[in-house]
Amino acid sequence: MPHKTNDPSRTSWLNVPKDSDFPIQNIPFGVFLTRDDIITIGTRIGDHAIDLGALHQLGYFEGIPLTDDIFLQDSLNDFISDGKKTWRLVRNRISELFESSNPALRDHEEHRKIVLFTLDEIEMQLPVQIGDYTDFYSSKEHATNVGKMFRDPENALLPNWLHIPVGYHGRSSTIIPSGTPIRRPKGQTLPKGASEPVFGPSKIVDFELEMAFITTDANVLGDPISVEEAEDYIFGLVLFNDWSARDIQKWEYVPLGPFLAKNFASSISAWIVTMDALEPFRTASPAQDPAPLPYLRQNGDKSFDIHLEVAITPENGEPTTVSRSNFKYMYWTMAQQLAHHTVNGCKINSGDMMGSGTISGPTPDSYGSMLELAWQGTKPVALSNGETRTSIADNDTVTLKGYCEKNGVRIGFGEVSTRLLPAIQ
Amino acid sequence: MPHKTNDPSRTSWLNVPKDSDFPIQNIPFGVFLTRDDIITIGTRIGDHAIDLGALHQLGYFEGIPLTDDIFLQDSLNDFISDGKKTWRLVRNRISELFESSNPALRDHEEHRKIVLFTLDEIEMQLPVQIGDYTDFYSSKEHATNVGKMFRDPENALLPNWLHIPVGYHGRSSTIIPSGTPIRRPKGQTLPKGASEPVFGPSKIVDFELEMAFITTDANVLGDPISVEEAEDYIFGLVLFNDWSARDIQKWEYVPLGPFLAKNFASSISAWIVTMDALEPFRTASPAQDPAPLPYLRQNGDKSFDIHLEVAITPENGEPTTVSRSNFKYMYWTMAQQLAHHTVNGCKINSGDMMGSGTISGPTPDSYGSMLELAWQGTKPVALSNGETRTSIADNDTVTLKGYCEKNGVRIGFGEVSTRLLPAIQ
Repeated sequence: MPHKTNDPSRTSWLNVPKDSDFPIQNIPFGVFLTRDDIITIGTRIGDHAIDLGALHQLGYFEGIPLTDDIFLQDSLNDFISDGKKTWRLVRNRISELFESSNPALRDHEEHRKIVLFTLDEIEMQLPVQIGDYTDFYSSKEHATNVGKMFRDPENALLPNWLHIPVGYHGRSSTIIPSGTPIRRPKGQTLPKGASEPVFGPSKIVDFELEMAFITTDANVLGDPISVEEAEDYIFGLVLFNDWSARDIQKWEYVPLGPFLAKNFASSISAWIVTMDALEPFRTASPAQDPAPLPYLRQNGDKSFDIHLEVAITPENGEPTTVSRSNFKYMYWTMAQQLAHHTVNGCKINSGDMMGSGTISGPTPDSYGSMLELAWQGTKPVALSNGETRTSIADNDTVTLKGYCEKNGVRIGFGEVSTRLLPAIQ
Repeated sequence: MPHKTNDPSRTSWLNVPKDSDFPIQNIPFGVFLTRDDIITIGTRIGDHAIDLGALHQLGYFEGIPLTDDIFLQDSLNDFISDGKKTWRLVRNRISELFESSNPALRDHEEHRKIVLFTLDEIEMQLPVQIGDYTDFYSSKEHATNVGKMFRDPENALLPNWLHIPVGYHGRSSTIIPSGTPIRRPKGQTLPKGASEPVFGPSKIVDFELEMAFITTDANVLGDPISVEEAEDYIFGLVLFNDWSARDIQKWEYVPLGPFLAKNFASSISAWIVTMDALEPFRTASPAQDPAPLPYLRQNGDKSFDIHLEVAITPENGEPTTVSRSNFKYMYWTMAQQLAHHTVNGCKINSGDMMGSGTISGPTPDSYGSMLELAWQGTKPVALSNGETRTSIADNDTVTLKGYCEKNGVRIGFGEVSTRLLPAIQ
């Protein structure tokens, strides 16, 4: 266990602003373009990005079994393939190196100039090449809300929901990092009362407040991963906005599930926060009744206390926080999701991404989508500029943030912020 | 147009057995391991595999804009990225080189020894690294059969089916080449009359007779591909067996679609047959009524006359052909599928794969799955050894074959053949 690395009293010789998501206890991993247009793998402390490719070339990872070019890549996939022991050795070494009392890099101005960047000198990239992306549907509150609106308020949950971490496959080619604007999608919809569909820009674009975890190579085709082992194959988590076009979804999704309503864009935060960094924030997940089948039974705290929030910023306006939720509301844990996903022998690769599904809490101000917050358009959500929203308007920016806090340490995910541009002509 | 390459009178100095799927008019592309354990991109004429990496090094592609290592790769993705003009130049050059009267390679024994392999000297690999895989549901007969069995026989087609080439995302990590055995998957099912699910090996494993097309980089995020342009971005086709566990599917698929019922394995044939090779076999697709929305309207023959068949071979038994169908039965064409897939701006990459959906014909002996052939278990299918099947039994091998035939030329896909092993203990 990385006790020292997570020690709340540890400080860095790099300045960490108050309320930063990135104290020395975090040490997330990401990919960025440097001022010299070189792509590298890096980490972040405070408002400094750190070039791990350069650190490795300068010998600071000596003794850790790493190939020479492991950080000089445009994705974390190969590093993630190296496995949990290696991730931990690297994270712990970075923590030691930047710890206040360690002079090795602190007092080596020449090396500092090579490895440190300010945030305005870099451009964050997608951190992994995502082979396959799966999205779960694991918040009971969200599934219940959707069931109440679209099916039977008295029997909102479908019969399988309490037995299966329901999930489906998504499209990885349109997963983009925070900051990349998207277009309002066009598609087929069936207007209310009409018998023939029409084509045009979606009229109901929505966000979905989610988190997603990134896996390492976990098994060979045919072999399951047990619920006990599952967490060992999770590298870390990101914030995830699963953009959705509700009117396209409604017309297309029976019987094979959402397709074009989702695959126009999905946005993630750029820094992957490791499972080791989240360790101090473990918490129980909701009690499960009925008890799941044996292959899904787990012991101990398998969830994490991660505060989540969503803000909408209209063009030339200020942000309004429209939802406050928490990762711990998830009924099914990541370990259960991964065990279920592989119980049929499905192969999991390094860089695969698995979304939580919309994370809605128990109260109306904690719902994770405009569909629920504005309850199908019946309860418009007020913005600070006096406008209201029942869905996302052209040129709105949607920003998801997330952080854990305990014993004076805040471990955050930064943000995933995405602007919705008008549909193309 | 590649007239000479497709000329029925063209013959090769390589022997092509009667009824071979691979005359000189085919020239498919694939990836194989050679006798020296080197991976290379190749083609096939008759029962010879041809090492394109070696041919290129020997200078036989001079004048065609190709990087030096374009064929010395473990997937066709980069070559497919080079685009249609380049694919055509390479295919035409191969055709010239192996044409009977061309002495360049025919009479160069040393070079022949380097580039030619017999089939038992090579091991076929997955031809592409599949980033994203989408499966459509485009056979009206299949959708109607499923609707009759599971929904309302009087209203078998769902309201959206005649307006949308319905599709959904699949999992690419478990797509395997012909010859790779698979395991009967385990999972949750709800026994008839039960209120609680049980866990165990699927009792109803099925094949689905499909074809799939492979795309090149087609657009940037946000931009659609028109139905007129769509075929230019299709590299070629393979046979595709979309393995399905019907009992798992039934319990899990509402509301987000099939998941573990499908992602345990999907098998493809190893040689990709190009659109240029299929050109002489164009045919009309079924008339569409109602007319689709303008973005899906197409002109000309956009389908292909490809005979398809499925055989089941029990352990130590002989194959029994259980279905004969045809690609031309597809209601929605590949061009319509690709135009629909991108109408919301979804990005398509090189090596993406799109399945047709089960291709059932109009008669009961042309249905593309055991679900339909045995009509939900009520009409067992007889095998030549006296056994019957309503689904696939342990140690059965399922083989899909496909070919076009016209003017004495047969262009085939070889086969995709997969053995179902028992569930793991």
